[in-house]
Amino acid sequence: MVFIIGELINSSRPQVGKAISDKDDALIRMLAKSQIEAGAHAIDLNAGQSVGREEEDLLWLIEVVQAEVGPEVRLAIDTSNPEVMAAGLEACSGSPVLNSISNEKGKETLIELAAQRDVEVIGLALGKHGMPKTAEDRVREARALIEKCKQAGVNLDRLYIDVICMSVGSNPDQGREVLEAVRRTKRELGVKTFTAVSNASFGLPNRRLLNRTCLAMLLQAGLDGAILDPSDKGIRDTIYAACALRGEDSYCIQYIKYHRRDKERQHERQYTG
Amino acid sequence: MVFIIGELINSSRPQVGKAISDKDDALIRMLAKSQIEAGAHAIDLNAGQSVGREEEDLLWLIEVVQAEVGPEVRLAIDTSNPEVMAAGLEACSGSPVLNSISNEKGKETLIELAAQRDVEVIGLALGKHGMPKTAEDRVREARALIEKCKQAGVNLDRLYIDVICMSVGSNPDQGREVLEAVRRTKRELGVKTFTAVSNASFGLPNRRLLNRTCLAMLLQAGLDGAILDPSDKGIRDTIYAACALRGEDSYCIQYIKYHRRDKERQHERQYTG
Repeated sequence: MVFIIGELINSSRPQVGKAISDKDDALIRMLAKSQIEAGAHAIDLNAGQSVGREEEDLLWLIEVVQAEVGPEVRLAIDTSNPEVMAAGLEACSGSPVLNSISNEKGKETLIELAAQRDVEVIGLALGKHGMPKTAEDRVREARALIEKCKQAGVNLDRLYIDVICMSVGSNPDQGREVLEAVRRTKRELGVKTFTAVSNASFGLPNRRLLNRTCLAMLLQAGLDGAILDPSDKGIRDTIYAACALRGEDSYCIQYIKYHRRDKERQHERQYTG
Repeated sequence: MVFIIGELINSSRPQVGKAISDKDDALIRMLAKSQIEAGAHAIDLNAGQSVGREEEDLLWLIEVVQAEVGPEVRLAIDTSNPEVMAAGLEACSGSPVLNSISNEKGKETLIELAAQRDVEVIGLALGKHGMPKTAEDRVREARALIEKCKQAGVNLDRLYIDVICMSVGSNPDQGREVLEAVRRTKRELGVKTFTAVSNASFGLPNRRLLNRTCLAMLLQAGLDGAILDPSDKGIRDTIYAACALRGEDSYCIQYIKYHRRDKERQHERQYTG
């Protein structure tokens, strides 16, 4: 089954950014609860827009979310600041996810942090050359990052390489390159793969259609995890259907259960308005 | 772009079987028109349930469909009877599709027919061992069929290997094996691939969800053509989204046009009831 991180608690989303600066916990609690109910295995927490008070805001998010959905909920600490990351990981009661490390200059401390704590780690396939263009760029950066991780003592079984999904609206080749990067990273480097699915549709109409189709194609290419909006029904539908089609759901038992719950919910809505 | 054959005019569907035996052309005309409008490149015609009068019924279908959607419409003549096939291909005004040849015993005449006429050919990846189980079975049968085609002089550029899609409900491995068969057939044998997508969901609930997800995954694996229900909006949505994601739709122009037409249609329905 694919590892799902819910993406909705991110300070770059205007409503969330405002809720964080106002310390208004209602929206944050709702987003945490709805993502867990929708099947997320972990919840991303990003306070990166909070200039000068990222650590304070992140710790507030962790407190609010753990109070809402339980101390054991898995949180993905999403920051590029090593000090904020250390404080965030420390504040998590459950097993956190470190989001993210990369080959970029100055990120060595984050890799060391990933080695010190035995946590799931998202490793971006990018470095000094900036955003990757081809599958080859991605595999090269992933290979170099894995090498650094080995040297630092990161547990490679818990590393997910984020192949850097980009919009097909501005560059039609990006879909094919990302999909090929998933296949090659798994086959050639033997690590798990991951990506932020909704980037594929940036700037295009009917993003949900592109996102769910892209997810199905990524899962066919072998994707192991994704950060996405689990409250999008098309995404949930696709995960259950694709797992059945990948042969990961014996006799489609999970798929059939999911379908039944879905029918029951529709029925409830019909009779409770 | 993926080659789409509309599957709806098939005598094994009870309503269609009845329309054929009653020579009631209204349903047949409607199904032909709606499939072409939905974007099918060819329309499958199957009168295989008409025991003793398959040829007569097939010729009637060809006449009705050509009268409805124009003599140049492409028809996929779907029969296992060589005499019926020859008569059907002869009666088509446009460029027909021969559906299908295989490695099964007694099908040699159909392969010869495919060689005589330069038409698109669907070649089933099955033979004397019956229905294939693994990707390996499918590739082996495809390789043997391609060899026979070469010897008979079939134009391999117009051959689509049908990798035999089977339900994941009765055998959870079938999705993975079929998807792998698409990849391997393209890579190892260098021919186009094809399948009947909706077989994947046979016996399961919410078949449309499984069908559209399976189609996205097949397109990621490299599928070149499919027989399916083009009037299913989820299928059409998936084709446009997947082509954009495969890099076959520069700057997503076709995807954006499709989205606009879709919005216009919704708007029309809203105001015309």
